[in-house]
Amino acid sequence: MSTPSAPAADQVGDLRPGSGPGTNPAVAELQQVLGGKVAVDPIVRAERSRDRSHLPHGTADAVVRCTSTHDVAAAARICAAHGVPMVPAGAGTGLEGGANARPGWVVIDLSPMDRILRIGAADLDATVQAGVLKSRLNAALQPHGLWFPAGPGVDASFGGMASTCASGTMAVRYGTLRENVLGLTVVLAGGEVIRTGGRARKSASGYDLTRLFVGAEGTLGIITEVTVRLHGLPRAVSAAVCSFPTLQDATLTVQEAVQAGIPVARMELLDEPMMAAINAYAATTSVTALPETATLFLEFHGTPRSMAEQAGQLRAIAAAHGGTGFESAGGPQERERLWQARTDVLPACQALVPGAATWSTDVCVPISRLAECITATQADIAASGVIAPIAGHAGDGNFHLAFVLAPGDGQALAAATAVNERLVARALAMGGTCTGEHGIGTGKLAALAAEHGPGVQVMAAIKAALDPQQIMNPGKVLP
Amino acid sequence: MSTPSAPAADQVGDLRPGSGPGTNPAVAELQQVLGGKVAVDPIVRAERSRDRSHLPHGTADAVVRCTSTHDVAAAARICAAHGVPMVPAGAGTGLEGGANARPGWVVIDLSPMDRILRIGAADLDATVQAGVLKSRLNAALQPHGLWFPAGPGVDASFGGMASTCASGTMAVRYGTLRENVLGLTVVLAGGEVIRTGGRARKSASGYDLTRLFVGAEGTLGIITEVTVRLHGLPRAVSAAVCSFPTLQDATLTVQEAVQAGIPVARMELLDEPMMAAINAYAATTSVTALPETATLFLEFHGTPRSMAEQAGQLRAIAAAHGGTGFESAGGPQERERLWQARTDVLPACQALVPGAATWSTDVCVPISRLAECITATQADIAASGVIAPIAGHAGDGNFHLAFVLAPGDGQALAAATAVNERLVARALAMGGTCTGEHGIGTGKLAALAAEHGPGVQVMAAIKAALDPQQIMNPGKVLP
Repeated sequence: MSTPSAPAADQVGDLRPGSGPGTNPAVAELQQVLGGKVAVDPIVRAERSRDRSHLPHGTADAVVRCTSTHDVAAAARICAAHGVPMVPAGAGTGLEGGANARPGWVVIDLSPMDRILRIGAADLDATVQAGVLKSRLNAALQPHGLWFPAGPGVDASFGGMASTCASGTMAVRYGTLRENVLGLTVVLAGGEVIRTGGRARKSASGYDLTRLFVGAEGTLGIITEVTVRLHGLPRAVSAAVCSFPTLQDATLTVQEAVQAGIPVARMELLDEPMMAAINAYAATTSVTALPETATLFLEFHGTPRSMAEQAGQLRAIAAAHGGTGFESAGGPQERERLWQARTDVLPACQALVPGAATWSTDVCVPISRLAECITATQADIAASGVIAPIAGHAGDGNFHLAFVLAPGDGQALAAATAVNERLVARALAMGGTCTGEHGIGTGKLAALAAEHGPGVQVMAAIKAALDPQQIMNPGKVLP
Repeated sequence: MSTPSAPAADQVGDLRPGSGPGTNPAVAELQQVLGGKVAVDPIVRAERSRDRSHLPHGTADAVVRCTSTHDVAAAARICAAHGVPMVPAGAGTGLEGGANARPGWVVIDLSPMDRILRIGAADLDATVQAGVLKSRLNAALQPHGLWFPAGPGVDASFGGMASTCASGTMAVRYGTLRENVLGLTVVLAGGEVIRTGGRARKSASGYDLTRLFVGAEGTLGIITEVTVRLHGLPRAVSAAVCSFPTLQDATLTVQEAVQAGIPVARMELLDEPMMAAINAYAATTSVTALPETATLFLEFHGTPRSMAEQAGQLRAIAAAHGGTGFESAGGPQERERLWQARTDVLPACQALVPGAATWSTDVCVPISRLAECITATQADIAASGVIAPIAGHAGDGNFHLAFVLAPGDGQALAAATAVNERLVARALAMGGTCTGEHGIGTGKLAALAAEHGPGVQVMAAIKAALDPQQIMNPGKVLP
């Protein structure tokens, strides 16, 4: 995926005096201790110094390709001794600048930490190194009849998913990373290693350090190993798609399904412009066109019997809200065909403007305000002249705008930025949060303050206590 | 419930020079500002200065009966100005000394904060003051077809349940307080008020302060309001009881049910001595005697059809492990009769020794180690000569010993203390935690250090950052 052009100010950081691998005293010591694991090649440094966002970034002075917690601890001790900032990098799929580097910094590259350390089939848990991708663990789990359903659509790493508190389409049924991480190994600012949580399903033993590091985006420590909760592969899976007269009808359907406790595995809402984008894109593929109205994509997991019951309940609720064309499918190919439109959301958006990049933002509101929030946002988008189809994890009240930006179109970027600011303000006014799953990074620093008020001082006090030198991914989450 | 006699050292605290309401400068100022809400009556102070544990406690200098967050903040500002420690008190049902006071301290009594502030039926959430009891919220929710299933068997307050990260018999299905608290209002050490979390189902916005205060037992701040996630009342409920040849058979049944993803609402395991205690107690009531072997008490929630499917699956797994007498019941009275034995656990234990008190401890282990852990613990109990029947939330790997102690029997108390220490060591060696749901309080301070190693320093750093004067329930959770 390409990303919009970023403001150029920081991109020339390497040319600043006193910066760069040659002048950074930590780099020489890192090379001495960690040898060939320390890359100073400009292409490698540029590649590993940013995420997928359009947000400002520079190029780090070195990339340390760590293969163990021991490597990370050694690198952290050296960086701490020299007061040099560190930023952890995983799969690079972040969306709010959380993994963006600066000149003078060192990237702690966790992607070589790709070992699955333990699969505990009897206890439904596994421990992986931070660089393991979700797809890899799931492939290894399949023979055990298990899987890890939480996390985003892209193939992210466990360190990255835990650090941003990722969630994805199945969080409504299986929880987010917050609920699915049992324990962590973390390297602290001074290079000390701690283990948080453990393998017990629950604990009331002291402060919940696990949940403190989950979502902290590497600003309090670097997550190097993650113990996760696993789930049994559903015996049967079925999918359904249903169109609604209005957004309100679709969200009321979702709301009533949640209230009734129907354990739907996915409930994805796509708005009218998103359906139009998908139809336009589908014309280039073999996918059948769908009505260009608010549409729910659903997935049910269970035994064949319980699944049929869920689908029946959902269909009845949808019908009561004018839902039409409720089409359901049980076979894998049929399901894939039905869900293809949802899968194609990003390429469909990008295809709207030749050569375009997308910028994805997200908020989350109480579900009773979801229709109102999306409708007001659609009006704002229309008035602003930006292109921003909407897709949402409706069961959680979480939705995304995919801003579609032509290359170099600074005006569109400015308009999108303003729409995003108003989106956040709208979500907060409705009792929601500025991000349901993308994190703060550098993109939502102002939003954090608006959301938490004096709570930000508490966060800052914790940051100061654990990272007094401010060398752990500074400027992210907290200004 | 009566509790074992405690070491007497601290009980005379009021008589120490320089202590007591008259000499505590904070008390006069509290009375000036909060008037009649400040109680110095010795009986009130004694009553509100302890929980249900046998652990050492003293008597606080004053009890501030707060009716609002504003009251708590005012009291905290005054205590902070004088460097006087505060301990929050709720329903008083704690089991590890978390709410125990000391001479010179002030009890922040939250039990008068008993207002339900908001029920959000459309969003399945509610906000309550910290003193609201679980039974009160559930009574108010019933007309909405909703309930709050998490939490212990006793009728605890929401502030207390959140502060100890309570869980109870239904955590296996509905989660613990950790998963069911969406947001908090917290009064910090200096009297500042913050709101954490919110009404969105999920958030990736900054550090997870909600989960930091949940389980912190009032040592980082005082929880005054709690926003919780609600659940739809199950359309149908059924219960079942099943006896097994061995503990191993019963735990394997639970393990396979969890692996198969059967959403059993409760899976309670009672060991042989517990069943014997219950039968002895039942002889005094109308309850039919059950086999004195490892027994599972089960409850299923769902639609009539899904529930029948769950029960059928469970029955088949139990049968494969030698489970006999699988009796299930759908009607409320039948269910109550079946579950009566589980309900009677505490009185049945107390009835074993005339005038006895019980001391309840808990650990939690990976479920694959549960049978081994309980079996080794039973052997230790037998060798020690203490009476300690076992009941567990087996689906979570969490179990309780109910030490039965004759009044004034110091030898039994010492033996129980030693059994408890070995129990914790055994659980930790198996990858478990020293407490699944009772908390650390003062009873498990040594266990906390053994469990978390250098992680305790991180907890201490957070404590120092948020409570530099060490006036928020000092000596609890952290030494």
